[in-house]
Amino acid sequence: MDDQLPEECLELALRAQRAALELQGISTAVKNRWLLHAAEGLERDQEGILRANAKDLEQAPAYGLTGPSVDRLRLDAKRLGGIAQGLREVAALPDPVGECLGGSVRPNGLMIQKVRVPIGVIFFIYESRPNVTADAAAIAIKSGNAILLRGGKEAHMTSRAIVEVLRESASWAGLPSDALQMVPMLDRRAVGELLKLSKQIDLVIPRGGESLVRRVCAEASMPVLKHFDGNCHVYVDSHADLEQAAQVVVNSKTQRMGVCNAAESLLVHQAVARVFLPKLAEDLSPFGIELRGDGLAMEILPGIAAASEDDWGQEYLGPIMSIKIVSDLDEAIAHINRYGSKHTDAIMTKDIQTARRFTNRVDSAVVIVNASTRFNDGGQFGFGAEIGISTDKLHARGPCGLTELTTYKYVVYGNGQLREG
Amino acid sequence: MDDQLPEECLELALRAQRAALELQGISTAVKNRWLLHAAEGLERDQEGILRANAKDLEQAPAYGLTGPSVDRLRLDAKRLGGIAQGLREVAALPDPVGECLGGSVRPNGLMIQKVRVPIGVIFFIYESRPNVTADAAAIAIKSGNAILLRGGKEAHMTSRAIVEVLRESASWAGLPSDALQMVPMLDRRAVGELLKLSKQIDLVIPRGGESLVRRVCAEASMPVLKHFDGNCHVYVDSHADLEQAAQVVVNSKTQRMGVCNAAESLLVHQAVARVFLPKLAEDLSPFGIELRGDGLAMEILPGIAAASEDDWGQEYLGPIMSIKIVSDLDEAIAHINRYGSKHTDAIMTKDIQTARRFTNRVDSAVVIVNASTRFNDGGQFGFGAEIGISTDKLHARGPCGLTELTTYKYVVYGNGQLREG
Repeated sequence: MDDQLPEECLELALRAQRAALELQGISTAVKNRWLLHAAEGLERDQEGILRANAKDLEQAPAYGLTGPSVDRLRLDAKRLGGIAQGLREVAALPDPVGECLGGSVRPNGLMIQKVRVPIGVIFFIYESRPNVTADAAAIAIKSGNAILLRGGKEAHMTSRAIVEVLRESASWAGLPSDALQMVPMLDRRAVGELLKLSKQIDLVIPRGGESLVRRVCAEASMPVLKHFDGNCHVYVDSHADLEQAAQVVVNSKTQRMGVCNAAESLLVHQAVARVFLPKLAEDLSPFGIELRGDGLAMEILPGIAAASEDDWGQEYLGPIMSIKIVSDLDEAIAHINRYGSKHTDAIMTKDIQTARRFTNRVDSAVVIVNASTRFNDGGQFGFGAEIGISTDKLHARGPCGLTELTTYKYVVYGNGQLREG
Repeated sequence: MDDQLPEECLELALRAQRAALELQGISTAVKNRWLLHAAEGLERDQEGILRANAKDLEQAPAYGLTGPSVDRLRLDAKRLGGIAQGLREVAALPDPVGECLGGSVRPNGLMIQKVRVPIGVIFFIYESRPNVTADAAAIAIKSGNAILLRGGKEAHMTSRAIVEVLRESASWAGLPSDALQMVPMLDRRAVGELLKLSKQIDLVIPRGGESLVRRVCAEASMPVLKHFDGNCHVYVDSHADLEQAAQVVVNSKTQRMGVCNAAESLLVHQAVARVFLPKLAEDLSPFGIELRGDGLAMEILPGIAAASEDDWGQEYLGPIMSIKIVSDLDEAIAHINRYGSKHTDAIMTKDIQTARRFTNRVDSAVVIVNASTRFNDGGQFGFGAEIGISTDKLHARGPCGLTELTTYKYVVYGNGQLREG
């Protein structure tokens, strides 16, 4: 059996590739019909899906899942309704495919058009929340791509039940059902085999813990759109509205702690540190945040822990925040570019030159002036749906929605032009 | 000495990174002043550069260079003038940095802008033509990037002389001179060391033979923008103007043979093959092209060689062309998608539906209707300058000019917004 794995993976990828080709010729209307029918299907087959989910929940302790992880895995009628609603929302979004991004008529009469097209075959590797299965398939296919889904084994039965509904709806609507396929082999080596297939798979998107992302980056032979860590900063400038700054820091840190766009590190200009920090510490105290500071921060806030070199690079994803006092704007910028993860960084300042220098020089996907880091999010940006938040600099940065799952080609029309020079 | 190599490479990359940061704040006027001054400098220092070039030419036999390769390496006053002119042309191009690519004001008042920014540090690995050194530096820096240049050892002295002039001009104009640096270590391992530095180097662009590109792809820890092979097709449809088709095939194959956008393979619809192929063979005969056909092509053109399975995937870069007779459009499309290199593929047809299906379904960077494949070129597209032609699907496809060396970031302005949901 085992030595058939490479062949099975190739077959899977080839089916996806054929479906991707077919998807190039499929209209927005058909894709939307699929989404709406699939939404209905999820609600109609509620019983079967919840039964599959119950089986996953039974296995959860065996996979070592506890409290919050089990909760994330659990579906009920309301959550399933939410997933169906998500599909309807993607149906309502504009189709990015076919948009003309530019073009020109050359002096020799050649007409050149730059046209938005799907990427092709996307391999999506993600963790165990079952809603992600439906969301990702919806976004990928609405933007014209075939998708290979590899979710966590903890949600395997649930994902399979959802994928079955989505594939049946695809056939019904006139889409190739291989536009979405689960990787059926639970064998861990299947991921490695698929990551070799750069001729068939155009892009891999890993979404999960750091070790997953690192493994995929190391093994993938095709481009990777990755979401690494989010070590996000708020810098409170000497020209900040300190009242507002405290609110934004509290919101950035505490509004939801386990997420990538939560703030992990606070930088404060030395001119305002003695006024700002005691007030902030008071505002943060109801949230039980452990503060770790540099020498001066420890002097201003006696009793807080010392931040080590390691702290500056940490994504805590929890109730800890590091604090560094900087002597000026450029020190803050240099610190962020050195220790940050190019995800989301914010400045609090009333001074326009300071804001412009910060937004210009901080090399992050999203740079925010006078608002919470928590706004780096496809929904908050008005994208309607997102498959992740990229920390890469190429292809797509920040929230990735439908448009970010497309590329372009040049279509050139002539009437017999020959090249001379 | 040897164990200092990793450290030397890191130092080089860190200097580039600091320069890239500084470049973010430098105006178009300063970049253009640099380009114009450097153009003058190349002409003024003509003697020194030609002397360096003479040293490279002396070494050429030792590196195994012969006829055409030695000619490509050779500079004279006219060629050097051409290089200087290239810098002036880049100065005249619009600066892509800072372009606002879109944005919105969200219901909560947050203003989101998507802004074009430089990529950062680009590592460019290329072969021995000395003009490429100046071109690449000009394009990279005009688009706001720092560049590390690693040319072929055959042109090392010439490149160094050119880079010295360009760096002096940079200092004069107010640019960080580390915006362009040669990789000074001739040690082959330097490339491997630099390819590890994904924290410092944002993109690597290999431009050269297949083995170079493969090596870079295998070793690079950062994204690669690559120019693989160009196995380009012309498909002559049953609805083609056969006279025009013959001209376009001849031009695509013969106008310049050793280049990536030359046609390597001809597909002909069976309905016109018996009329078209004999005429084409006659038109091609002055160019001494060896034809290799499938069974039917061999029957129509007695005496031509048989094409093997290997031929369909070949980039000959010389006077050979493979010929396949297809039964319909979809067979042509499938053949191109299977054997092509996603570079440039053309169709000759008068039928609009056929043209649209071809442009829609052929998964190549540039798809051409009724014109020569040789038009896939930055100059022909009106880009003014190019650093290569990408066969990747992500980030940039087709000719890569200034714009393709940029990415974007989101700049968000608020007035204290906090996230609630």
